[in-house]
Amino acid sequence: MLESTVAAIRPLDETAMAAARELQGRLTKPAGSLGALEPLSVRLAGLAGTCPPPLPEPAAVAIFAGDHGVHAQGVTPWPQEVTAQMIANFVAGGAVVNAFARQAGASVTVVDVGVATPLPVEPTADLAGPRLVAANVRPGTRDLTVTAALTRDEARAAVETGIRIAGELVDAGAGILLTGDMGIGNTTPAAALIAAFTGVDPAAATGRGTGVDDETYARKVGVVRAALDRHAPDPADPLGVLAAVGGLEHAALAGLVLGAAARRVPVLLDGVIAVSAALAAAAFAPDAVGAMVAGHRSAEPGATAALRHLGLDPLIDLGLRLGEGTGALLALPVVTGAVRVLHEVATFDSAGVAEK
Amino acid sequence: MLESTVAAIRPLDETAMAAARELQGRLTKPAGSLGALEPLSVRLAGLAGTCPPPLPEPAAVAIFAGDHGVHAQGVTPWPQEVTAQMIANFVAGGAVVNAFARQAGASVTVVDVGVATPLPVEPTADLAGPRLVAANVRPGTRDLTVTAALTRDEARAAVETGIRIAGELVDAGAGILLTGDMGIGNTTPAAALIAAFTGVDPAAATGRGTGVDDETYARKVGVVRAALDRHAPDPADPLGVLAAVGGLEHAALAGLVLGAAARRVPVLLDGVIAVSAALAAAAFAPDAVGAMVAGHRSAEPGATAALRHLGLDPLIDLGLRLGEGTGALLALPVVTGAVRVLHEVATFDSAGVAEK
Repeated sequence: MLESTVAAIRPLDETAMAAARELQGRLTKPAGSLGALEPLSVRLAGLAGTCPPPLPEPAAVAIFAGDHGVHAQGVTPWPQEVTAQMIANFVAGGAVVNAFARQAGASVTVVDVGVATPLPVEPTADLAGPRLVAANVRPGTRDLTVTAALTRDEARAAVETGIRIAGELVDAGAGILLTGDMGIGNTTPAAALIAAFTGVDPAAATGRGTGVDDETYARKVGVVRAALDRHAPDPADPLGVLAAVGGLEHAALAGLVLGAAARRVPVLLDGVIAVSAALAAAAFAPDAVGAMVAGHRSAEPGATAALRHLGLDPLIDLGLRLGEGTGALLALPVVTGAVRVLHEVATFDSAGVAEK
Repeated sequence: MLESTVAAIRPLDETAMAAARELQGRLTKPAGSLGALEPLSVRLAGLAGTCPPPLPEPAAVAIFAGDHGVHAQGVTPWPQEVTAQMIANFVAGGAVVNAFARQAGASVTVVDVGVATPLPVEPTADLAGPRLVAANVRPGTRDLTVTAALTRDEARAAVETGIRIAGELVDAGAGILLTGDMGIGNTTPAAALIAAFTGVDPAAATGRGTGVDDETYARKVGVVRAALDRHAPDPADPLGVLAAVGGLEHAALAGLVLGAAARRVPVLLDGVIAVSAALAAAAFAPDAVGAMVAGHRSAEPGATAALRHLGLDPLIDLGLRLGEGTGALLALPVVTGAVRVLHEVATFDSAGVAEK
């Protein structure tokens, strides 16, 4: 499934992009006055292969959850059980991602791709509320400072879970996918992925996650550096990188991005976990970047390194560092607005407005 | 009406703000992980005087339109008739502000506070579509390089029109007001207002508006400098500044801000025209800043100078320079989301989630 998905990812459609550029020039506004929304609308036309592209609705958030063996190294003050507890919170609709999803009219799908502790809730296919999908590849990764976090087969299974979820959401009608994540300790493998794919130093890729103190931060940087030294991951082998230093939710998110790109549906990236996974997706299929929209600039420094490597400018920059998909949801109306302009705004000619 | 409105503007409620800070700390997310949304939610609690503050809905955009005698100085390549033509476009629902307002569920009220040419549409009170209010103080300002743009009485009439519209919208149930503007040439008086109130040099306050060439830009800076030299406006006399170098839509927007602040309803500022007017409002009543939310950072350099003077950080920074209220509308979901968190997110205790 991975190979066929990668093979299906094609470049943006230049004809549709040219049509969108031409249409932007005729709408009743000064040329270029919508700033970053104009090239975004052009790119989404290229992804859809038509101008105007469809409105990106309904939106579907996919939250992949996993645990991390590196938690044993003391990289976070939060107990590992919080991953499972927050899944229960998502299913009950009590988390920030739920509040933002209700506001945006987005569905929420939570996928247990590798939680280590028992879930306090049962899987549900209830489409009225948040859905919980059981797809546990293994109960958390191994400790990447000791051994590879995953086998290649485990990493592939997680990637293919992401591809499968993307397909299911698009088949159910989603016009845009939003990345979400939950996993206590998951900014550590994200930093390792970012250092591995971009080549930046572990200190530049590592941030304070949910807010660690100086001592924990220094330990975290040391852990990321040790993992890269031990595994020397090859950025040309994304499955190997994900297996060596990744997480199950990171691998699944890479798959979600690939699945969206193959179906030519935009994927709105959340924060540092999402962009670290997007680096893996881009390593599998460089044209997948055409489907990516960077929702926001996470407060994590590694996110900025990853966005630079991908050539993406984020839509929102508000110092968020929550994850769950919250930053992507806040950016969603900007994406929808960018496309809506192509559908609804009058031209100078049709509105009888003089040009300069 | 101006004096009683200014007198009604009071500081933020510290008790409600303390309650909001305390609640933010108990919600199921790491402390501070919602970045700029957390202090915003606290401030809106202080404005409302209760925690949580009401959701800022429904939203109402008020677009004030006017023309400018300084158009004769060649500060813009657009014909003056475009102001009236765009009003027709607003009423027909064909402009970008209409598309964004439909998406956000916001009403649109267009107010002719000083258009110079005949309007191609009739005033309408139809609340189903965009409403057009006739409140023309005079058919465009005088040329501020030759004489004061307005008399003090005219400036007051425009400010009081803005106060009146704010009151009507709040009486009709609006939970947040959004500033909009239309006026060919109106970035020139905006730059003059910003230079007058902040003390920055005219060159730093003046931008390229809808996209003028180098020659026009140099002339525009010269016009702003000449206006300040001629009138030497006193920033402690905001009505005098508005009369000398302002515009009718700028004055009305200052009134809208004051009216919102007096009613303790947040006002979401659009771009450079809005923030230049907000400087006047803050000069009338420093506590009015508590009701202001900066929607976005306009591409106009003067906007950044004004925001710095007001101590406001914008929510969105996407290089927009369209006006109409478009940047405010794109930022609206961020404001709503910030408040929604206080209403809907579970606490650690209620959700059974462990703390660090």
